[in-house]
Formats: sequence, C-alpha cells, structure tokens
Amino acid sequence: MTLRKIKLTIAYDGSDYHGWQKQPGQKTIQGLLTEAVKKLTGSNIEIAGASRTDAGVSALGQAASLEIDSRIPAKNFPKAINDKLPRDIIVTDAEQMPPDFDIIKAVKTKLYRYSVYNGKKRPVLHIKHCWHIPAKLDISSMETAAKHLLGKKDFKSFAAAADKRKTTIRTIFRCDITYENQWLYFDVEGDGFLYNMVRNIVGTLVDVGRGRIKPDNIEKILKAKDRTAAGQLAPGQGLCLMWIKYD
Amino acid sequence: MTLRKIKLTIAYDGSDYHGWQKQPGQKTIQGLLTEAVKKLTGSNIEIAGASRTDAGVSALGQAASLEIDSRIPAKNFPKAINDKLPRDIIVTDAEQMPPDFDIIKAVKTKLYRYSVYNGKKRPVLHIKHCWHIPAKLDISSMETAAKHLLGKKDFKSFAAAADKRKTTIRTIFRCDITYENQWLYFDVEGDGFLYNMVRNIVGTLVDVGRGRIKPDNIEKILKAKDRTAAGQLAPGQGLCLMWIKYD
Repeated sequence: MTLRKIKLTIAYDGSDYHGWQKQPGQKTIQGLLTEAVKKLTGSNIEIAGASRTDAGVSALGQAASLEIDSRIPAKNFPKAINDKLPRDIIVTDAEQMPPDFDIIKAVKTKLYRYSVYNGKKRPVLHIKHCWHIPAKLDISSMETAAKHLLGKKDFKSFAAAADKRKTTIRTIFRCDITYENQWLYFDVEGDGFLYNMVRNIVGTLVDVGRGRIKPDNIEKILKAKDRTAAGQLAPGQGLCLMWIKYD
Repeated sequence: MTLRKIKLTIAYDGSDYHGWQKQPGQKTIQGLLTEAVKKLTGSNIEIAGASRTDAGVSALGQAASLEIDSRIPAKNFPKAINDKLPRDIIVTDAEQMPPDFDIIKAVKTKLYRYSVYNGKKRPVLHIKHCWHIPAKLDISSMETAAKHLLGKKDFKSFAAAADKRKTTIRTIFRCDITYENQWLYFDVEGDGFLYNMVRNIVGTLVDVGRGRIKPDNIEKILKAKDRTAAGQLAPGQGLCLMWIKYD
C-alpha cells in the first residue's frame, strides 16, 4: 500500500455550519468532508485543515490535506468528492504533494477578507456574509490605525484568551480598507493568525471608526499584550478566508 | 375603534424559508411577520401579501397590508416590527392607505429578477441565490425567444397546473437578459404573474439557450395553452421579487 498525500482547495458558505472543525453532533465543514471522502473511498481518513474557521465564517480558498490509498488521479478528486458534498461546500482543486508536505507548516501567507455593510437598511440578501453597521465610520482614522498593525509584531492583545499557541508573534503584510458603495472590505494578509485575530483586528478598527479608540492607541494596545486592551470582537459571518499561499 | 390600513414593504432572504405563505409547522415569511405583529400589538392580525413567493425565493420589495387598531405612526412601524423579526427579514417601509386599498388588486406592475451563474465552478457563496448552469448558453437565441413573450398574451403554458385563477392572460412589459461577468440576469416585468410563471419562463429560455427549444417555438408553446409544451421549471432559489408598483 502506497499512501499518496493530496492537497485540496475548498470553498464554502459557512453560514449554516458550526465552523471547520469536526465536533460530535454538529454540522461542520471538516465533518462533511470526512463523510464525503468515506463515501468515496470506504475509509475513515483524517483530513487536516490549514485554518480552523469559526462558526459562520466562509472560505473561497481553505486548504486541507489527506493521505489516501487510491489510484484516482488528483485531478479527478474534486468532481468525485463534490458529488458527495452539499451544494454550499465545494472542492475547487486537488494536487498530489510530497509525503512530507505539512498543510500548516508550509503556509507562506493567508488572506482574509472581512465585509462590513455600512448602509442604513439591513442588507437581508447579504446578512449572512457581512457585519451590518448602520453608524457612521471615520474611514481615514481606521486607515491610520490599520497602518500600526503592519509588520512583525506580538499580537497577543488580538488573540482570544483560549489561544494556547507558543508564540503570539505574527507578521501582517497588508491591512487594507476598501470602500465601495456602502460596503467596507478589510483585507488582512499575514504569515499566520492567532485564534480570533482577524475578527479582533476588525472589531478594534471599527471601534476606531466610531471614535471609541484613537488611531494612535493601536501601539499601546499591542504593547499591553492583553486581549482586554483591544476593541470588540467582530461577528464571524463577515469573515471569508480568500486564499492561502504555499511555498 | 378605528382600524387603519397599513401597507408594508418587505425584503427577505428566502433561502431558509418555506415561502411566503403561512403553513402550520413551517417557517414562512408571512408566519414570522404575523408573530412579530402579534408581539407588537398583542393581537393576531391577518397580513395579506401581494405575491405568494415560493420556498427559497427572495424579495427586496414584497408588499403586504394589515388593518391595525394602534396609534403608532406608520413611519415608526418598520423599526418596531424589525426588532421582532429574524435578521433575514426586514420591513423597509410602511405607509397608511385608504380603507378600501387592496394589496393585490391595486398592483400596477411587478419586477422579478432571476439570477443564473454561468461559470464553471459552483459559486458557493451565492449558491442559495442563483441557479448554477455550467453549460454554454446561446444568449442571442434566448434574447430572440424572450421577445416573443412581450405583450398581452395567454400564459397558460407557463403556469403550474395547480394555478386555478380565472384568467391566464397577463401582460409582460419587459423580459430583459443581462450578461455580466458569468452572471445572467433575467428581468421580467408584468402586470401580474401566474403560479410558477417566471420560473417556467426562465427555465424555457434556458432550454432555448442550450439548444433544446428553438427561439421561434415560443409562439407555438404559447398557443398550446398547456404546461407540458414549455420547458423546465427553474429552481426557486434564483428568483427575487424586486419591486411592486402601485397606482
């Protein structure tokens, strides 16, 4: 038996799911993928994900890997698995990797996009994919604040207390804010993210936009290395994992 | 007691609902609105809708009316009701009408938009609001076919057999097809629609686009006055009631 390592690229509408991670009795992306692969191969195969997206969070470019004892060519995988997945989850790509490929360690950068609807009326057709903030936001203050987040820093203040990873140092390459027709998009690219980090960054920037936090206080918040120093947690449904780049 | 007649404009994401119409044991828009009004007024008030949208169908401009024994000014209604509605239903407007106003009879025209995604990959983030057709569609044939639907005609062939209305004659003012970045939008405006009429029109036009029905056969289909003469029924989730114009 020769096991082949396959890397999958996966897109999903997270609004009906309890996040990526398999949990007993809950509808999760990892859980449904595992079931789909079982239907296809007959075996219970462990699927390792690159990002543990939370409940309500969507993805266009999640990545996952699995080891498989099958002769199906990698390029035939997506269609074969998609036939066994609900319509709001799709495997968009599959490729064979070297046996020592590690879906988490090999990540170079990831891009998350957070969408805020800043119009007055509740955007019902998009409400499961955005955070609706009818209040006025000072975008230029938010942009000033966002610049303080760029670079290699200790992001402990922006991590959920539950995050038990050894180091809280991460590098943020990009934290751009785009305004388009009452929609605000926060594009955050980094070499990795702590638990809830993007949602804490967006929530804090929104607090800056509402005048609750001064843009220059971001430095102080980072130095505090304490979650309570930062602003509110943005709700999960506005977040989408856009892509993950590998070496 | 003086009853006032109030007209509501309502928007909703229909993807989690069993359509507009109240049904025992089912989550419906009319049902949830009735509950919200009951929480607000303490009474079970009948809410009359202008359009019976099907399961999965969304709306940006549904209309409904109710008679109410309350002094709340009409302009305060939306916020008061919205506080009692789930986030995917919203009352966007309310106005007081003369006592003899009839929410169905007073309709002048309605516009429905049907969205088709014509790209290869399943559009997971939009899959609950479109019909995904990866196959090639001949848009110019569809446009030719659409022109045959304009005007005052008997649309019996495009009505579900279950439709028991007296006359099947309706006037279609517009049946436009717009193509934008792999998205196809069908905008159908008429003075009224039979049960499943827009979905049968779109399904038939898609059959034309795929070469299964010739564009000039539309005249023959209309003359047949028989549902089986027309093409397939487009799925509900691609449909959205955009607005209703009143006299």
